[in-house]
Amino acid sequence: MAKVMVLGGDGFCGWPTALHLSQAGHDVVIVDNHSRRKIDIELEVESLTPIASIGTRLAAWRQVTGKTIGYERLTLGRDYAEFVALLRRFEPDAIVHLAEQRAAPYSMKSTAEKRYTVSNNLNATHDVLCAIVDSGCDAHLVHLGTMGVYGYGTAGMRIPEGYLTVSVVTDDGPKTLEILYPANPGSIYHMTKTQDQLFFLYYNKNYQLRITDLHQGIVWGTQTAETALDDRLINRFDYDGDYGTVLNRFLMQAAMGHPLTVHGTGGQTRAFIHIRDSVRCIELAIANPPQRGERVNIFNQMTETHRLIDLARMISEMSGTPYQLVDNPRNEAAENDLSVANDRFLGLGLEPTLLRQGLLVEIEEIARKYLGRCDPTKIPCTSVWRSPPRSTARRDRAARARPLAAA
Amino acid sequence: MAKVMVLGGDGFCGWPTALHLSQAGHDVVIVDNHSRRKIDIELEVESLTPIASIGTRLAAWRQVTGKTIGYERLTLGRDYAEFVALLRRFEPDAIVHLAEQRAAPYSMKSTAEKRYTVSNNLNATHDVLCAIVDSGCDAHLVHLGTMGVYGYGTAGMRIPEGYLTVSVVTDDGPKTLEILYPANPGSIYHMTKTQDQLFFLYYNKNYQLRITDLHQGIVWGTQTAETALDDRLINRFDYDGDYGTVLNRFLMQAAMGHPLTVHGTGGQTRAFIHIRDSVRCIELAIANPPQRGERVNIFNQMTETHRLIDLARMISEMSGTPYQLVDNPRNEAAENDLSVANDRFLGLGLEPTLLRQGLLVEIEEIARKYLGRCDPTKIPCTSVWRSPPRSTARRDRAARARPLAAA
Repeated sequence: MAKVMVLGGDGFCGWPTALHLSQAGHDVVIVDNHSRRKIDIELEVESLTPIASIGTRLAAWRQVTGKTIGYERLTLGRDYAEFVALLRRFEPDAIVHLAEQRAAPYSMKSTAEKRYTVSNNLNATHDVLCAIVDSGCDAHLVHLGTMGVYGYGTAGMRIPEGYLTVSVVTDDGPKTLEILYPANPGSIYHMTKTQDQLFFLYYNKNYQLRITDLHQGIVWGTQTAETALDDRLINRFDYDGDYGTVLNRFLMQAAMGHPLTVHGTGGQTRAFIHIRDSVRCIELAIANPPQRGERVNIFNQMTETHRLIDLARMISEMSGTPYQLVDNPRNEAAENDLSVANDRFLGLGLEPTLLRQGLLVEIEEIARKYLGRCDPTKIPCTSVWRSPPRSTARRDRAARARPLAAA
Repeated sequence: MAKVMVLGGDGFCGWPTALHLSQAGHDVVIVDNHSRRKIDIELEVESLTPIASIGTRLAAWRQVTGKTIGYERLTLGRDYAEFVALLRRFEPDAIVHLAEQRAAPYSMKSTAEKRYTVSNNLNATHDVLCAIVDSGCDAHLVHLGTMGVYGYGTAGMRIPEGYLTVSVVTDDGPKTLEILYPANPGSIYHMTKTQDQLFFLYYNKNYQLRITDLHQGIVWGTQTAETALDDRLINRFDYDGDYGTVLNRFLMQAAMGHPLTVHGTGGQTRAFIHIRDSVRCIELAIANPPQRGERVNIFNQMTETHRLIDLARMISEMSGTPYQLVDNPRNEAAENDLSVANDRFLGLGLEPTLLRQGLLVEIEEIARKYLGRCDPTKIPCTSVWRSPPRSTARRDRAARARPLAAA
């Protein structure tokens, strides 16, 4: 089996990925710096599900399965020499890179979060690439990107898997090119992912690194087969306005009996995937690396699309809680279609868990079960996507003044 | 006249830009952290022309012209609160952003320089954008980008000014899109400039910032009308293998009577512009800002293209020094055509200084005049663009091992 390093392996996607790969027999090492747990402290909120410390998690995994997962605490983008030394020592076959700040609303919260997201995500990704070259290790890099690199509702096309075929006019007549799908990011967070693509393009072209970029939809669901083995292995469930997805907001509101708040008209269409399918996709990506010299391998990691209003109706029916329309804080089209190609993972044998099948479990076994741990004041999203009108910017600025954190 | 802030105003392009704008009657403030002078110390080399300290430069300018240029020492990407305070105090109409590490060979030198270039350039550009929003100042941002964002010789097209018209197939039939020209960077430095474009795209779309991005060719020439007014105002001339351009290498070799070293076949075609025209273009860009709500304004800032072998022949004829072909350290096509649209600056009245007219001055008044200050061992480029073959990577790595600088 393979040696796999999971960067960000203590997070919402990283933890179930590490367990799934360990269960499948791979030799797994987690690299993490607790950044997600520290952001909880800063936001004065906690995962709805009670998550154990990383030490307790790893001990429980050993106890329940007899398998050992390694753990190294270091900060990518900063502890470079230590990371290169770790690559030389462990010699991974694959590196799963989830060591980025992953919430769009958090990245829009204020200046400190914008600067942190840019500096953390870009320096982390560059360090990973640079260190693969420096260490001489031959690892296949599997990166978690986002469907958001495409921008929503671009030009009414079915969104391809990463590359777009276009025609251009040249001196020698029309010519066909295959290009990276033109980027149109919707938040600071999404912007960093579009910039990551250029890191990958360059390091792939110049150093022939083997790279897979997974453009993931909104991940839903909490437990995988492995995290459900023991209470101490339970995965995060974020319900706050910064890290909670729209789906988790609906689930919490359903559990509380508070009307589900739909931003705008609810006509925004989004792509979704269950966390169980997400970890399977990562496993499939590891098992199917590109050849050296091949271009960056891009998959769309999603299984279904829904309009938000339809999701709200679905959860409303299941729970008996009504929904209501409220103002949309995002700078986006009120309505969009979204048609996404995901043939590659389906071709590799993925069998999706669909929302209609899995949502009731989330309402009953997560949202209602842990409702007592919920702080309802944390549910609304307070980040604002637009700048205030110029004439009032100075006045509002004074009112909003807050100390700047080092980024 | 306008209030203009020149970020990186002590550097090769920044210093003549600051003087030119001051002479034209604008109120100019330079922001710089001496990073370029400190890199000289690190590389154990100096500008061929003896450049005065920033204090001496500014005092000389006052003495010669009666005009005052302000100076603030701070580091973009780090001293964020100080920069926002400066924007609020000075309230610039335009900000010229040259505060990036600008040499491709330096960016490829070793790990420390790669990481420094990525972290410095990306955090600096993001801080400038974020601070414009935070400060509420209404400045037009003029950024110095590079022709290198296009990649060389892409698809035999005449390179447009920033945006490319393409056709795609959609469910409703063929559709025309205007997209950012697909990026194909040739070095770590160039990569950061392609990532800058995504910062601009996003901040323009989301905050309606007014931004002009100048895709500049290779700048040649040393003096402008203003830097030639007094010896203490003289501009930099870099001849070393990291910061010296191919043209400056040829000029130094011509002055020394050493055969001009042409990398590869010399069939690589490059775009050029004289420093006098570069500062005029920046002035024209400031005078012609985009409207609020308009997309990012992109100009190609170059005036002529030449194959390197033809340049070598031209300088060889003027100086009587022969040329020779040597190995190319870059990872690029041996030969390329380059046809570039530059109608926009010509339409605004730019009258170019051509290489054929200006090169003899450079040979005689710069390269030969200051030859005594040249360290010939610093002329060759030692950076290597390719990674060693995998099988020997580990062995070479041990031989190349060097301490890592903090980035």
